Amino acid sequence: MFEEAFGRVLAEPIAAMHDSPATDVSAMDGYALRWSDVASRTISVVGTVAAGRAPISLPSGAAVRIFTGAVIPPEADLVVQREHCLEQSDTIELQCPPESLRKGLNIRKRGENARAGDPVLSAGQLIRPQTMAGIASFAHTNQLTVYRRVRVCIINTGDELISLGEPFEPWQIRDSNGPMLEAMLSPLEWVHARRMRVRDTLESIEQAIRNALVDHDAILLTGGVSMGDMDFVPQAIERVGGKIIFHRIPIRPGKPMLGAATNEGKLFLGLPGNPLSVATTFRRYGLSLLQSIGGIAQQEVAPVEKVICDDEKKLNLLWFRLVQRRSDGVLVVASSQGSGDVASLAKCDGFVEIPPGEIASGFRRFYRFS
Amino acid sequence: MFEEAFGRVLAEPIAAMHDSPATDVSAMDGYALRWSDVASRTISVVGTVAAGRAPISLPSGAAVRIFTGAVIPPEADLVVQREHCLEQSDTIELQCPPESLRKGLNIRKRGENARAGDPVLSAGQLIRPQTMAGIASFAHTNQLTVYRRVRVCIINTGDELISLGEPFEPWQIRDSNGPMLEAMLSPLEWVHARRMRVRDTLESIEQAIRNALVDHDAILLTGGVSMGDMDFVPQAIERVGGKIIFHRIPIRPGKPMLGAATNEGKLFLGLPGNPLSVATTFRRYGLSLLQSIGGIAQQEVAPVEKVICDDEKKLNLLWFRLVQRRSDGVLVVASSQGSGDVASLAKCDGFVEIPPGEIASGFRRFYRFS
Repeated sequence: MFEEAFGRVLAEPIAAMHDSPATDVSAMDGYALRWSDVASRTISVVGTVAAGRAPISLPSGAAVRIFTGAVIPPEADLVVQREHCLEQSDTIELQCPPESLRKGLNIRKRGENARAGDPVLSAGQLIRPQTMAGIASFAHTNQLTVYRRVRVCIINTGDELISLGEPFEPWQIRDSNGPMLEAMLSPLEWVHARRMRVRDTLESIEQAIRNALVDHDAILLTGGVSMGDMDFVPQAIERVGGKIIFHRIPIRPGKPMLGAATNEGKLFLGLPGNPLSVATTFRRYGLSLLQSIGGIAQQEVAPVEKVICDDEKKLNLLWFRLVQRRSDGVLVVASSQGSGDVASLAKCDGFVEIPPGEIASGFRRFYRFS
Repeated sequence: MFEEAFGRVLAEPIAAMHDSPATDVSAMDGYALRWSDVASRTISVVGTVAAGRAPISLPSGAAVRIFTGAVIPPEADLVVQREHCLEQSDTIELQCPPESLRKGLNIRKRGENARAGDPVLSAGQLIRPQTMAGIASFAHTNQLTVYRRVRVCIINTGDELISLGEPFEPWQIRDSNGPMLEAMLSPLEWVHARRMRVRDTLESIEQAIRNALVDHDAILLTGGVSMGDMDFVPQAIERVGGKIIFHRIPIRPGKPMLGAATNEGKLFLGLPGNPLSVATTFRRYGLSLLQSIGGIAQQEVAPVEKVICDDEKKLNLLWFRLVQRRSDGVLVVASSQGSGDVASLAKCDGFVEIPPGEIASGFRRFYRFS
């Protein structure tokens, strides 16, 4: 069933199996006739052809009634739309001026959209709804080859974390990063994600990573990634053979972010523990890394959109500011207390990227969370 | 499990169960101390408090080592970040100028993000990943009330339709509308969709609609909606008690589109049979009608984006033109042969809406297909 390929990444190109349209078809409800008969006032109607029926033959001096999408009789040169004909019991009279008619009128020519063999889809395309239309129309078989899913393990670190539903002390924090990241990944059919929470010790993080490496392609960690004595993620990654590629980048929020990889090409992304940092760094960097692993050739580019902001703050780093879309479509920068402000995060649509030294208002790249 | 609520529509407001943060916590790794002790050069360190631990008491004249997210001792007034302290075996020496210190420094105050009882989420919100973060953080229980799914039946009409994998004659057409519409609906957790194909007769369409009305809230039909003698959808809808609310609207593609409803509020949307019409009319009108039925209070507004087009064509109706997003983010109008051009559709990201009498280039509302 090719329907199961929806949301996966196509691993083979698809060329058109046949011309599209596969034969000349009518673009209108009307009458098909020969160009040489156009001069006649009255033409006898000798048959009807509807969409999905085999073609019929058109004798000289006659017309056939034809419906949109139906095959043009091989002898016919044009279709006169029904509104331009006076219909009688078994004849029609053309009512339009002769100069409004021409050969090919109201005929969709065989192959005018695509020729058999034309490339329609390429390997590395994410299969979206419109891609499904292309596959359904042009593929040779209903067995498609897609890339295997990217296996992602989400590991939330932090002794302060508890889950919604557990008894709560004021010095604890509900884990929102786990459910949020899982929700960001779950609509992606090309990803298989699981999630776990580990204690804040070097040993438990190291063990969790080591286990996850066995059957995952990428590991997303939250928390424990700064330079402090309680930040065990960098060390744990190095202990299992991960090479740190970057650690700390000039962004807000999310500065302590870490990227690493094993020699086998498995990926680690250490995201800071604050929910805003997780939301923005995963969306801005993590998603496209996963897309690369997943074989997605052409990644979605963030649109540039109009942003308004009621402050003129600037930072000397790349600044991700939460925005809400206003009813007129404009993005408005949200007031937020900081990277722990989940209440603001929950109300926003995404964030915009402000270059160093610039104010937020203007035209900015917009990243949707969903 | 509240995780199952992802993608559904919240049917109850959620107010914060507790202050956020729930207590004063440290924003930094460093040392918590009393404001009255800031003048001392050397301060003894009497303990450590990490995130997730119960608060400890701070004697006068002393400091405790503290980590990001950990509870501030009730007697402490500020946190000096570690980088500003000279750390010795069991004392610290403050190295920063006294004027850089103030009461409250590096303390995230209890409730600064949200107060217990503050409204965080409202009924009618679609539960997106960032909404999950809000629920995980603030909900009172892990049992949420969501609206029931909108049950949608997709009915594809057309005797010319066959499925990918079936033997193919040139006068037949592969059904792309069915798989495409199904794929547009399948990521929507708040929708339950099924799909069927029916013969092009009044009786079979009427029977299919009648059956579908039993256990569906909305029926999406494709094909058979024009004014011709083979267009049975309007009549079939009226026969089962549907009242036609609109039929034919000044748009391209999709002009023959029909909207109807029963007295019980069940919705019919008759979309034309051409794939581009189906893609654009469903995305532009169908989706928001389903959102209304589903209880989604605030519908997503289409962004206004920069569009370029290499022609200056205008039409006297609302024109939906396919676009592809270029690598710089700008939307480029695709050349398309017409509403049967599935090859173009498959390569596009969505469409822009051109008002009557205007050229495409400019700033236009953009509708993504996915």
